[in-house]
Amino acid sequence: MEQASLTIDLNCDMGESFGVYELGNDAALLDVVSSANIACGFHAGDPLTMRRTVREALSRGVAVGAHPGLPDLAGFGRREMAVSPQEAYAMTVYQIGALSAIVRAEGGRLGHVKPHGALYNMAAKDAALAEAIAEAAYKTDPALVLFGLAGSELIRAGMRLGLRTASEVFADRTYQADGSLTPRSRQDALLHDEDEAAERVVRLVRAGVVRSQQGVDVPLTAETVCIHGDGPQALAFARLIRERLEAAGIQVKAVGHG
Amino acid sequence: MEQASLTIDLNCDMGESFGVYELGNDAALLDVVSSANIACGFHAGDPLTMRRTVREALSRGVAVGAHPGLPDLAGFGRREMAVSPQEAYAMTVYQIGALSAIVRAEGGRLGHVKPHGALYNMAAKDAALAEAIAEAAYKTDPALVLFGLAGSELIRAGMRLGLRTASEVFADRTYQADGSLTPRSRQDALLHDEDEAAERVVRLVRAGVVRSQQGVDVPLTAETVCIHGDGPQALAFARLIRERLEAAGIQVKAVGHG
Amino acid sequence: MEQASLTIDLNCDMGESFGVYELGNDAALLDVVSSANIACGFHAGDPLTMRRTVREALSRGVAVGAHPGLPDLAGFGRREMAVSPQEAYAMTVYQIGALSAIVRAEGGRLGHVKPHGALYNMAAKDAALAEAIAEAAYKTDPALVLFGLAGSELIRAGMRLGLRTASEVFADRTYQADGSLTPRSRQDALLHDEDEAAERVVRLVRAGVVRSQQGVDVPLTAETVCIHGDGPQALAFARLIRERLEAAGIQVKAVGHG
Amino acid sequence: MEQASLTIDLNCDMGESFGVYELGNDAALLDVVSSANIACGFHAGDPLTMRRTVREALSRGVAVGAHPGLPDLAGFGRREMAVSPQEAYAMTVYQIGALSAIVRAEGGRLGHVKPHGALYNMAAKDAALAEAIAEAAYKTDPALVLFGLAGSELIRAGMRLGLRTASEVFADRTYQADGSLTPRSRQDALLHDEDEAAERVVRLVRAGVVRSQQGVDVPLTAETVCIHGDGPQALAFARLIRERLEAAGIQVKAVGHG
Repeated sequence: MEQASLTIDLNCDMGESFGVYELGNDAALLDVVSSANIACGFHAGDPLTMRRTVREALSRGVAVGAHPGLPDLAGFGRREMAVSPQEAYAMTVYQIGALSAIVRAEGGRLGHVKPHGALYNMAAKDAALAEAIAEAAYKTDPALVLFGLAGSELIRAGMRLGLRTASEVFADRTYQADGSLTPRSRQDALLHDEDEAAERVVRLVRAGVVRSQQGVDVPLTAETVCIHGDGPQALAFARLIRERLEAAGIQVKAVGHG
Repeated sequence: MEQASLTIDLNCDMGESFGVYELGNDAALLDVVSSANIACGFHAGDPLTMRRTVREALSRGVAVGAHPGLPDLAGFGRREMAVSPQEAYAMTVYQIGALSAIVRAEGGRLGHVKPHGALYNMAAKDAALAEAIAEAAYKTDPALVLFGLAGSELIRAGMRLGLRTASEVFADRTYQADGSLTPRSRQDALLHDEDEAAERVVRLVRAGVVRSQQGVDVPLTAETVCIHGDGPQALAFARLIRERLEAAGIQVKAVGHG
Repeated sequence: MEQASLTIDLNCDMGESFGVYELGNDAALLDVVSSANIACGFHAGDPLTMRRTVREALSRGVAVGAHPGLPDLAGFGRREMAVSPQEAYAMTVYQIGALSAIVRAEGGRLGHVKPHGALYNMAAKDAALAEAIAEAAYKTDPALVLFGLAGSELIRAGMRLGLRTASEVFADRTYQADGSLTPRSRQDALLHDEDEAAERVVRLVRAGVVRSQQGVDVPLTAETVCIHGDGPQALAFARLIRERLEAAGIQVKAVGHG
Repeated sequence: MEQASLTIDLNCDMGESFGVYELGNDAALLDVVSSANIACGFHAGDPLTMRRTVREALSRGVAVGAHPGLPDLAGFGRREMAVSPQEAYAMTVYQIGALSAIVRAEGGRLGHVKPHGALYNMAAKDAALAEAIAEAAYKTDPALVLFGLAGSELIRAGMRLGLRTASEVFADRTYQADGSLTPRSRQDALLHDEDEAAERVVRLVRAGVVRSQQGVDVPLTAETVCIHGDGPQALAFARLIRERLEAAGIQVKAVGHG
């Protein structure tokens, strides 16, 4: 009975094409996820791509969020850059505003913000940067939901400001006993068994715990699950996770809705 | 008696610095003009510069507008580019949205839109481009005032959509008998006598006519006067125009206010 | 007997990926063409992509050329821009130089230059722009071969400077009675029958004439044939052309070699 | 008698304007320095600016070097970015090649390479990055002189490859007992007394030592002195240093010449 009320958000990065360059499988993934994080022109995306992606998401009832990144198209926003909190604040307001106007022009409303790549990673650990990004979201629209790594500085910064936050977990990553992600540099950073990964997501939603690489269960807040859109198996894996969640009586639903 | 109600807007392009590169004399000009057209990061400007300029304008009670341009920082948006109406629409929504968010974050409200450089010139003559830009303004916020060359396709497009428009005249340019600007390629394109230029503005506001190069008066709607911010004489000339207007009992006032 | 000495160059645009964005089918096409026009970072390409593409071309004995474009990554260099001849000169020297250094660093030598997209089209018609580009090639390395549209201003400009030129023809485009390409805006701009297209190339090489849309034969210098790399049929069509040429006793060989 | 043979190079960053944005005081500084490090379009500079600066330097007999930077115009190449050694290698070859072609087109020859800003700082400490940059210089032209911080990984990498190197010292910075620069974050990082700074340079050239902040003399190789071009006092300070050097019988002369 209680399970009937369990919900989880599935989010995916989208709109990462640029000009003639196409990337991702947005149309198919929009049938699986509940939230779309749309690139805003700095690490990827351009105004026309943003508009097209917003339209596709809105037409399927998928919640639209801004996915601001570092100004590094050549590096796809994945290379850490020593931006100051002031710069991070201003570039985040800029990108949220640009996407927000496109969403409004298409008759929708921007629902959330999730920083991209290196900006996401830096904001997870650097409290000043996290605060700058959270403040950028808050000042632009205090009703926005701030997505960030579960247990991160970004989530803490959002909470301090009174923003609604969504703690993000990764289906294909392993965790340490302190709740942190196993660093990418380590062999065991990724989970390769899709069934195991899907079951892990179900357990995270149901019980709020994940089995760490040290063999002990760690409590972890899971309000949204990151679905990767790239790679040949991405779509099949996304569908598997959604199926398992629904089979377990968990409803896939955007964080900010209803 | 009737003159007491005469008003005119003086607008100036601002926020055209980029990173370490400084341009213009914004602080001084903000004491002279009533509307600031702020660059949005495509032809000039960057998020931090936009924020700083917005703050300065708001603190002086100057109306803030978006000044979207072509994606050509190296050419300062002055080189014509064959952008499609769809591209122009999307890049205009994007830029208006980015600046609008920064204005809101600083506690203000975006009041107008004026395209920059080659985009302005192309939108004056090309009806499809004009319509795309007007629609971009309308879809982003139907309360925005659209600035365009007096008698241009852009003003017509704005009117057709029901946008409030502001017809722009140039104090330092000469006009032809059909009301068009004398092309820059011609020797007599610019007016070099500042007194004559200032008197011309006063007459435009009072009588709605300008003496053309052909020696006949041409009716011309003047709702806002473009003040150039660059060049050593720019500030002095701007002050002269304002003085003459006020001496003639004409109030300098933003279009969209009050 | 005489036919045994007939040769023709097949060229293809390459290295047009950017960062994470992949474009084209370079590896497969390098087995078909004799000249690779490698993007230089303005309309497409980035330093790592340039290096990788240069290596692949050199390892297959394909002649390497620079493919400079307009500074418009978002528009892939296809949107006309009002660049001055001075700007075109400087950006062409810059791009040729950048690629040339990469080629030298890999142990090769840059052989030719072919402007890309809108720069190619503008240089075909605008004599001042054509001269600027030809001079850029000449000043960078007078031994470079300049590729341009057969009968264009660019070919004329190269000849005037004493550069070796290569007149380019298109297998999939139709021609007018004056030797010009049928404009893209017209229904009959493209040739859809691949066999007809391949035979046309053979005839161009053998007889130096093409049947125009007006039904008369037009003389046309064909020193290099443009092979398109994009589209699902591109590779098969490229192979067909090469097969037909070789079946006709025509050797596929880079312009600048041996 | 021996002093007559003493020489030192004075180098200054130049060509850092971009499009309409002007920066620096190149013309005046070219009369003071012996080497110009010219920006290559990534952190600053554009093809036309590069050409103009190269011409000015060549016409005054100042040695021309490439000043490659990170792809970060908005941050002027001063923000550290996590570029891989492969990326650093490729972007350095690209930038050296671009400038080298412009120099050749103007009848000159590129003499040296000095990385800019964050790339310079990272290459001083990171051996893999230093090796990538040194290799880029070597592969482009083994006759290039590599400028780097005295005692840095970059100088060591250049030496290992057999490149001629020039160890750089700073007139306005203080040093630690181990020969490293006092970090910018510290109060005593900068030397404010111009006379003291100039004398320090003379002593560095004559005796090869500098008095550290700990009060002990440290040996330091000084083959080129960095002259800053920005700031109101920059030109006067540069002239003072040159005067003191000449008064001490030290000739100001480019590293790679004669």
